[in-house]
Amino acid sequence: MLNNLQFYGDSISGNCYKLQLVCSELDIDYTWHEVNILSGATQTEEFLKLNPNGKVPLMILPDGRCLPESNAILSYLADGSSLRGSDRYSRASVLQWLFFEQYSHEPYIATARFIVKYLGSPVERQTDLEGKRPGGYKALDVMELKLSSDHFIANNEFSIADIALYAYTHVAHEGGFDLTAYPAVREWLARIETRPRYVAMRAALRQA
Amino acid sequence: MLNNLQFYGDSISGNCYKLQLVCSELDIDYTWHEVNILSGATQTEEFLKLNPNGKVPLMILPDGRCLPESNAILSYLADGSSLRGSDRYSRASVLQWLFFEQYSHEPYIATARFIVKYLGSPVERQTDLEGKRPGGYKALDVMELKLSSDHFIANNEFSIADIALYAYTHVAHEGGFDLTAYPAVREWLARIETRPRYVAMRAALRQA
Repeated sequence: MLNNLQFYGDSISGNCYKLQLVCSELDIDYTWHEVNILSGATQTEEFLKLNPNGKVPLMILPDGRCLPESNAILSYLADGSSLRGSDRYSRASVLQWLFFEQYSHEPYIATARFIVKYLGSPVERQTDLEGKRPGGYKALDVMELKLSSDHFIANNEFSIADIALYAYTHVAHEGGFDLTAYPAVREWLARIETRPRYVAMRAALRQA
Repeated sequence: MLNNLQFYGDSISGNCYKLQLVCSELDIDYTWHEVNILSGATQTEEFLKLNPNGKVPLMILPDGRCLPESNAILSYLADGSSLRGSDRYSRASVLQWLFFEQYSHEPYIATARFIVKYLGSPVERQTDLEGKRPGGYKALDVMELKLSSDHFIANNEFSIADIALYAYTHVAHEGGFDLTAYPAVREWLARIETRPRYVAMRAALRQA
């Protein structure tokens, strides 16, 4: 039984939101420490002692051990549950999609959202922003192909791979990505949103 | 016991080399199918049926199931062994560094090497190449800090996280990174190279 977990995260970040989704699914309690990435709070001397890579989310266990990297934290929280995969191949298949998310999806779709929504789409970032389009749409193409035959992204079973990919796909439009041509992806988003323990992203709270 | 594994990979790729390192450590046999990424062999209709994301390495199991993503394949091959971590936290800590490798290290250090060594450092890629320096040196800084106190990157035990990070760190100089200021990283490279089952990268073979 996991308890007394401390999370450092920013509610505008999809990487941090993943933890809220998995904890709701698995009924895990935690304490949330809001860290404002826009104000440089992950680059302070104090924070860099906890995570020298200067990123959120970060999990602190009751004995003080730290764990960064959103998808490693998801794997820790879901270890031994059906959300992590039930045999050698299915566990690896879940990881396949977690690595796909961090390498082939997040750097395009999350970064475009950050530039548009949080930096206000400045003129000097337009080339960078447009450079995100081919990679982002390629990631969506790969997901659409998979979700055209399967209900869930890995092993056709709901897992932390769905949680990881949902986090930024459901706000892809905030970075200028148009999901009209991706019906299977849109159905999958709706499928996740109707789960009984689904929780919405709290990004809107901080903007209010 | 794993057997009859088929790997599709390019010997110039550090991501593919990782599989050769872990199979040597764990005494796993495999058949290697050389795929030339420079000639577009990962973008053919035939290959995209195996991996719609169009990347190597790719593993095919005897029953035909496919697994892409180098670090997911490492996790599959090492599942249940000490190289994957022995408890919940150590397994997650290994994953932490595998995600660090794919998000904060490979996109800078491997990509710079590709531009310099395999594209011949063309004029039109110089801005892109120089843009890789801060991220690459930041990744090396994070590794140096960790390896200044520990012999191995995760849990202070040799694991697939060392294998994953070794693959491109040991050829970082080929992309123009200078490791002079990273003594702990250099000692760690040497520590891996003196392991009894260490195998060298075969990239040189194809260039000859």
